[in-house]
Amino acid sequence: MSLLVAITGWEPEPWAERFRRVMPGRNVHLLGESYDPAAIDYVASWKHPPRALANLPNLKVLFSLGAGVDHLFSDPGLPSAPIVRVVDSDLTARMSEYVVLHCLVCLRQQRRYDQQQRRREWIDDRLQPAAADMRVGIMGMGELGQDAAQKLAMLGFQVAGWSRTPRRSVHAEMYAGADELESFLRRSDILVVLLPLTPETRGMIDADLLRKLARDGAFGAPYLINAGRGGLQIERDILTCLDEGSLLGATLDVFEQEPLPGASPLWSHPAVTVTPHNAAMSSPETIGRQVAEQIAAFENGEPLKNIVDSARKY
Amino acid sequence: MSLLVAITGWEPEPWAERFRRVMPGRNVHLLGESYDPAAIDYVASWKHPPRALANLPNLKVLFSLGAGVDHLFSDPGLPSAPIVRVVDSDLTARMSEYVVLHCLVCLRQQRRYDQQQRRREWIDDRLQPAAADMRVGIMGMGELGQDAAQKLAMLGFQVAGWSRTPRRSVHAEMYAGADELESFLRRSDILVVLLPLTPETRGMIDADLLRKLARDGAFGAPYLINAGRGGLQIERDILTCLDEGSLLGATLDVFEQEPLPGASPLWSHPAVTVTPHNAAMSSPETIGRQVAEQIAAFENGEPLKNIVDSARKY
Repeated sequence: MSLLVAITGWEPEPWAERFRRVMPGRNVHLLGESYDPAAIDYVASWKHPPRALANLPNLKVLFSLGAGVDHLFSDPGLPSAPIVRVVDSDLTARMSEYVVLHCLVCLRQQRRYDQQQRRREWIDDRLQPAAADMRVGIMGMGELGQDAAQKLAMLGFQVAGWSRTPRRSVHAEMYAGADELESFLRRSDILVVLLPLTPETRGMIDADLLRKLARDGAFGAPYLINAGRGGLQIERDILTCLDEGSLLGATLDVFEQEPLPGASPLWSHPAVTVTPHNAAMSSPETIGRQVAEQIAAFENGEPLKNIVDSARKY
Repeated sequence: MSLLVAITGWEPEPWAERFRRVMPGRNVHLLGESYDPAAIDYVASWKHPPRALANLPNLKVLFSLGAGVDHLFSDPGLPSAPIVRVVDSDLTARMSEYVVLHCLVCLRQQRRYDQQQRRREWIDDRLQPAAADMRVGIMGMGELGQDAAQKLAMLGFQVAGWSRTPRRSVHAEMYAGADELESFLRRSDILVVLLPLTPETRGMIDADLLRKLARDGAFGAPYLINAGRGGLQIERDILTCLDEGSLLGATLDVFEQEPLPGASPLWSHPAVTVTPHNAAMSSPETIGRQVAEQIAAFENGEPLKNIVDSARKY
């Protein structure tokens, strides 16, 4: 009975250590070590190399260690075992910290005050909208979007949500599907993108979409926060919209190519905040425990939770 | 029946306009205009010049237009009429926006990521505490402190509050009085100062107090947020503590002298965020209406709300 830890991009060792601690009776292997493929019954993956899992004849479950699963579907040798994605309250809370932080940076014009500080300028003019004057629109109303909506509403923001299929929320005015997308965009001063990356959503955040956002808000132009996936956005279009004034600013945690190349103009654009895809980092402590609990329940005959729909790819 | 608007530091005109709109039957005068002192029955003040209100024989109520009232007690010619201070839900919400924003800037190490962005560095190492790992301590648990405590707790922070006299809170572990101050400081990773400025609190945020804050938190040193009054802090001591490492950083909205002098080392200290005393700006819209409603109720024989205790000076 063995767990294979198949990670690239993150340090795999802390994960292997954590799994050994929470599953004391089980062998834990790292990719690249020597192990018997037939002994592997579980895999814990984050961006495993293509085909690295192709020959595991007794694989029972594949666990994705981050919130997204698009990294799995890019593997042409993906095994047919059920895929379970992480739905972790710690990860959800961290994403909401990030979303709330950057909505408040926009609302409270912190970047403007940073610039004033550098110039030693004390300007306290009175144009200061309150959260209640600001309309946040969240694209993607799964676990992450719902939690962010609740916390933003509690701070006073006017929150709406958009999802592909109709959903309900007590904290957000809901819009669904292609038909209601434009109405949703037209009422949003801050657009928060938390969509999964699928064939349907790839490249969706483009100039056409950004130009439909609200222009009648307190600042006269909208703000973009993408904490979903880089493949959702067209970076050239974001820069065009910033420079033509149809976008006030942007906070981007994810990029078409990661790490963001040193030559990208996003790094030095005065209206852009770049963070290194750390809005919601999976922690070995909490997620290792969650995977161990799921395996124990599964082996007791209980159904798996948070199984990925391989047709919809999320 | 006349209202005198006695404001310095802010533009008085928008206030006078707002009062004229919400009290159509009443004369509204600005300080410096010609008016009959005996006709003034109400004053709306923010930092009025000393003795400017000394000869108003029929003054019934003095309204303070901001959250603090220390600006009034520095006037040796302060009239003996009851003083009513603003307790405004809009102002409270704005203060909580500010406090939550800067607690999240600290938690999410946004200043470090700002620096990395300037250097085009993509470093996503995994040391990222969650709000649940961070202990916020709020000094001053009146309307503002209670609201901030609720919102911080909802984001997952561990919140405690300290007040001069015992108070209760469902969102914060409470400490009271001089005896419990040190225990409160020892458990606080982020200190949020929302105290009123009184003879007892003046200069309270000094090196002695800052050195008692927690050193065993996620970042190894505590963070200070002062959104109360500049007179509470000893700026020389804040700089000393930053430079000796007993303080990680500080966000200051208020200063010993305002505007903050151009020569102050706070402007350019890499660990200090300076904002121009705008954490919670009084808005003529909401506060003008509140004052009009209080006057109408008072003239109907109802008791005044939020009267200042002139012995305690807040």
